[in-house]
Amino acid sequence: MQFLSDNAASVHPAVWDALRAADTPDAPYDGDAISAGLDDKVSALFGRECAVLWVATGTAANCLALATMVQPHGGVVCHEEAHIEVDEGGAPGFYLHGAKLLLAHGDGAKLAPDAIRAVIDPIRDDVHQVQPHAISITQASEYGRSYRPEEVAAIATLAKHRGLGLHMDGARFANAVAFLDCSPSEAAGPVDALSFGFVKNGGMSAEAIVFFDPALADVARYRRKRAGHLQSKGRYLAAQIHAMLDGDVWLANARNANAAAAEIASACGERLMHAVEANELFVHCTAAEREALRAQGFGFYDWGADAARFVTAWNTREEHARALAQAIAGL
Amino acid sequence: MQFLSDNAASVHPAVWDALRAADTPDAPYDGDAISAGLDDKVSALFGRECAVLWVATGTAANCLALATMVQPHGGVVCHEEAHIEVDEGGAPGFYLHGAKLLLAHGDGAKLAPDAIRAVIDPIRDDVHQVQPHAISITQASEYGRSYRPEEVAAIATLAKHRGLGLHMDGARFANAVAFLDCSPSEAAGPVDALSFGFVKNGGMSAEAIVFFDPALADVARYRRKRAGHLQSKGRYLAAQIHAMLDGDVWLANARNANAAAAEIASACGERLMHAVEANELFVHCTAAEREALRAQGFGFYDWGADAARFVTAWNTREEHARALAQAIAGL
Amino acid sequence: MQFLSDNAASVHPAVWDALRAADTPDAPYDGDAISAGLDDKVSALFGRECAVLWVATGTAANCLALATMVQPHGGVVCHEEAHIEVDEGGAPGFYLHGAKLLLAHGDGAKLAPDAIRAVIDPIRDDVHQVQPHAISITQASEYGRSYRPEEVAAIATLAKHRGLGLHMDGARFANAVAFLDCSPSEAAGPVDALSFGFVKNGGMSAEAIVFFDPALADVARYRRKRAGHLQSKGRYLAAQIHAMLDGDVWLANARNANAAAAEIASACGERLMHAVEANELFVHCTAAEREALRAQGFGFYDWGADAARFVTAWNTREEHARALAQAIAGL
Amino acid sequence: MQFLSDNAASVHPAVWDALRAADTPDAPYDGDAISAGLDDKVSALFGRECAVLWVATGTAANCLALATMVQPHGGVVCHEEAHIEVDEGGAPGFYLHGAKLLLAHGDGAKLAPDAIRAVIDPIRDDVHQVQPHAISITQASEYGRSYRPEEVAAIATLAKHRGLGLHMDGARFANAVAFLDCSPSEAAGPVDALSFGFVKNGGMSAEAIVFFDPALADVARYRRKRAGHLQSKGRYLAAQIHAMLDGDVWLANARNANAAAAEIASACGERLMHAVEANELFVHCTAAEREALRAQGFGFYDWGADAARFVTAWNTREEHARALAQAIAGL
Repeated sequence: MQFLSDNAASVHPAVWDALRAADTPDAPYDGDAISAGLDDKVSALFGRECAVLWVATGTAANCLALATMVQPHGGVVCHEEAHIEVDEGGAPGFYLHGAKLLLAHGDGAKLAPDAIRAVIDPIRDDVHQVQPHAISITQASEYGRSYRPEEVAAIATLAKHRGLGLHMDGARFANAVAFLDCSPSEAAGPVDALSFGFVKNGGMSAEAIVFFDPALADVARYRRKRAGHLQSKGRYLAAQIHAMLDGDVWLANARNANAAAAEIASACGERLMHAVEANELFVHCTAAEREALRAQGFGFYDWGADAARFVTAWNTREEHARALAQAIAGL
Repeated sequence: MQFLSDNAASVHPAVWDALRAADTPDAPYDGDAISAGLDDKVSALFGRECAVLWVATGTAANCLALATMVQPHGGVVCHEEAHIEVDEGGAPGFYLHGAKLLLAHGDGAKLAPDAIRAVIDPIRDDVHQVQPHAISITQASEYGRSYRPEEVAAIATLAKHRGLGLHMDGARFANAVAFLDCSPSEAAGPVDALSFGFVKNGGMSAEAIVFFDPALADVARYRRKRAGHLQSKGRYLAAQIHAMLDGDVWLANARNANAAAAEIASACGERLMHAVEANELFVHCTAAEREALRAQGFGFYDWGADAARFVTAWNTREEHARALAQAIAGL
Repeated sequence: MQFLSDNAASVHPAVWDALRAADTPDAPYDGDAISAGLDDKVSALFGRECAVLWVATGTAANCLALATMVQPHGGVVCHEEAHIEVDEGGAPGFYLHGAKLLLAHGDGAKLAPDAIRAVIDPIRDDVHQVQPHAISITQASEYGRSYRPEEVAAIATLAKHRGLGLHMDGARFANAVAFLDCSPSEAAGPVDALSFGFVKNGGMSAEAIVFFDPALADVARYRRKRAGHLQSKGRYLAAQIHAMLDGDVWLANARNANAAAAEIASACGERLMHAVEANELFVHCTAAEREALRAQGFGFYDWGADAARFVTAWNTREEHARALAQAIAGL
Repeated sequence: MQFLSDNAASVHPAVWDALRAADTPDAPYDGDAISAGLDDKVSALFGRECAVLWVATGTAANCLALATMVQPHGGVVCHEEAHIEVDEGGAPGFYLHGAKLLLAHGDGAKLAPDAIRAVIDPIRDDVHQVQPHAISITQASEYGRSYRPEEVAAIATLAKHRGLGLHMDGARFANAVAFLDCSPSEAAGPVDALSFGFVKNGGMSAEAIVFFDPALADVARYRRKRAGHLQSKGRYLAAQIHAMLDGDVWLANARNANAAAAEIASACGERLMHAVEANELFVHCTAAEREALRAQGFGFYDWGADAARFVTAWNTREEHARALAQAIAGL
């Protein structure tokens, strides 16, 4: 019973079907009909015009999106525990040509306008200090917390006021939408670009960078090629995204994962470090308790010395979630 | 009847089977059992110890390989029509942090020691000029020409003598091996790293960077992550490579493609611009002749004003090749 | 009697005076009064509004100027023998974050619209090939040839038409102006930025980047700091530039150098490889002849196997030039 | 009576003399006799073999030094208030091609082994997190605190044990040596490279990068050119360094500055935020008190809302220091 991560789960049947259906030759790169259909489908989903680029990883999605907003001498305000800061092997430094991450605090790995101002207001407006060019927030956050639409809007207002780009890392955007029970457009708010994740949610190897400003997409297309992320058989990536969007598979999958997380959360009580607003649980428990859980067949990561992280996936079985809930309750 | 390129052909059944077989969760990134098995399999194939990294594109493979050999202030000797120079959107400049491509001439897009010396000998040994750090050759070349083992060996000797790294772009390495009818080890020669291509040869989205020096692989692992090329469900890439290697699918596929090319070549006579030593044909023909061929249902690229490029693939049907041969003969 | 280069000549007395006059504390970096006065002085010289940044070297000037016009995924059209390509240790690759130099041909190391079109027209308008973002020309060229105002204008028209930035490397701009006997504004034409050189012309360590578009200067200020070129005692650089401009020292110095070159040229006849339009001479002569000249006490560089390069400086003594002329005539 | 900074003070007479003495032509770049003499002189000073490169700024010195130790995918441990982090406009990101600064805490902007371990020990040894490649410390620190030789040695031991390079930013190295009253070698300890500052200490535009490992200098020479920091009239930089070293001008100047700071410190009592171990004072005082000081003619920077920073220079007059001391005492 694995709760290690959603990032290595198996692939959804609809994705497999779409991959097989894509197995007739078409134009290479993103010149094929399947890729060409993405803009319209995603635009319809968000209710406004989008330009969509597929890439294989969230790291590439985040960095290519940011590279359209941030000059090499600029900076990106992000949470000190954001994925781009902590877990992408320095990719932002590479893709942004040395631009700097400007780290902000915030409960649950979420940013708020005050926290952002606390970072950028002290920056002297001179050439000796790196000036902010963009803000990046994560929906849902590294701790599985979801921004409410008004929270995103408040950050967007600040960004606009300061002339900063706004990017949303949506590796688990689906889980946030499912939790918030709102439209994707409300969950994304007025960001300039969204890394819309599918791999953790039933895909195999395709994420979408959704640009709400087509001019940014035009730059990103060159940068994607330059980064070696323009696959020649791109139709197999585009097909995955279509499969996830058709019939709202992405939403159904996220709801499954969230429901499993909620089931487990219901047993955690005071042990929860963070409200469960997506598919991740951070649970206080001792080393002995973790050992006990592992002895019962549960797989998960330690989170520091006194906690564990459990992640549910699109295909987490209900009985496994229930079993874990009971096991935690029985500690 | 498409002869546009091999880069968008459909995926080989063995690859599909392997993909499906990989559809059980395992450790993410390259921590899974399938990825773990690559080093041994490729080492056996080449008869010497290799460290293997999968990536999604040839551009990423080439650039990550070169990044282990070339410092940002150095240069890479390559043919003036090499893919890294002409068709990778400036990716070497990105991955090598501004290192320079030092362009050499050579028939059939092949390099030879004299041509390399003509580039590097005039470089003054001072800080004002970019010094060469590596050589990159392409097997088979951009014009479908294959290096004989002794040709690679001569270049390797020069590289070693000058203290330069040696990289082989093997996007169509399989076709070269099939043409040369030698072992992979002979076709690769004593290079430091090989971009071993599978996507053009029946794969979906996996190329292998084969490092013959494990220390280089250690650097490349960091660079791969930093470039957003470490996919979380990496087992689906590793599975493709295994599928291509098992039972020598890679070689059978390449032989098919080469045979189709040879069939067509047999009808081209004096029209051939380059000897056909892989699966590409560059054929002199007028605009009117090209129009005539297209009217008969053949797809291909113009190659300048007076020629056409035809590329066969692993699944080019014999009757299509024969039809094209007859059509060309009948011009 | 040295004719090796103008780049190591001694410093003009007016520059020394200005340096000493600057030796009272003022605000650091470019916040001092001397630096503040540059914009007005250079604007008056060119008859249009300029923003001026001092830097210590021509390499920094060229690269910082280009960095405001060229994105990392773009390219710069320049002559294949341009200083930025041949003699700056790969600095453009560093400052432009991997952007590519796109090399054009041209007699006397000068570009012309046709030569530029021959480079950029074949570039496919897709993401696989590096797109041009700017053009860089050198006034006077690497071979001491000066662009006529109408030649610059023609290139500027092309640049504007194609949406490309236009940069002028003016390491020897003064010599070109002196030769052309026109205004600085005519010699620069409608370029976006000019690297206005002083070090080769009697300065110690200050070059000016002249931006005719102030928005570019705003970017360059950040990049200059980021490159470690914002000296804390910047007033000593600004003072040098003022000293060179006041009373047209720059022009008088260039006239001296050009006159010396003309004197020598008058003796060279058919030996001249290039018309002498600044302060450099490229002179056919055999190894034996070069030996003879050196035996008479003349210092200069060999230029390949069959020629020599002579460079005059602001302080080349008339009798030395005459002596060299006689020596060449006597070969 | 200026106490704003030492970075814009006037130039020492000995430096002027050396500049004038250098005003005869010699080989360009660093090929001149004056530059050639630096290695021996600095080696003698430190009692071990050094390779010395001049550059114009501390930012360039720091970044070129670090670029020899840190790969683009690595990181540099430094204090969270280090100059490279706070005041160099992102230059490390540029010079190190996106490598990351890993920020440590420490009183007085000094690092200690425990603080360094607190940063590097939690870094997972995998490709997802940026691995440390070097440590950079500042002697004297941003708060004018000097590392004792045993403190440097302890950090060097840690660096060696972990395989990390060790760099010392010595913008005010002279002041540290003067305060510590030890040899330069003891104050530098076993670092790999030292940015030996002269500009703040009476120079005009020359800092020395002292490499204790000549192999690092060989790389730095290429990087210096590539960064546009190889000035053609380099002898004027080398001459400044010689002038500062000859007769220990550097030490005398630093002693003057330190003595002035000590004089002021003696009046500050409890107001001092940091022990005064070089030529900087950080002094608690209210806005009203600062106003009062300014009304008496003292120039200085506010340091946040409740403090002021005073910096003395090589030429701070004793009576000015005394006057400031009395003014502070009288608050």
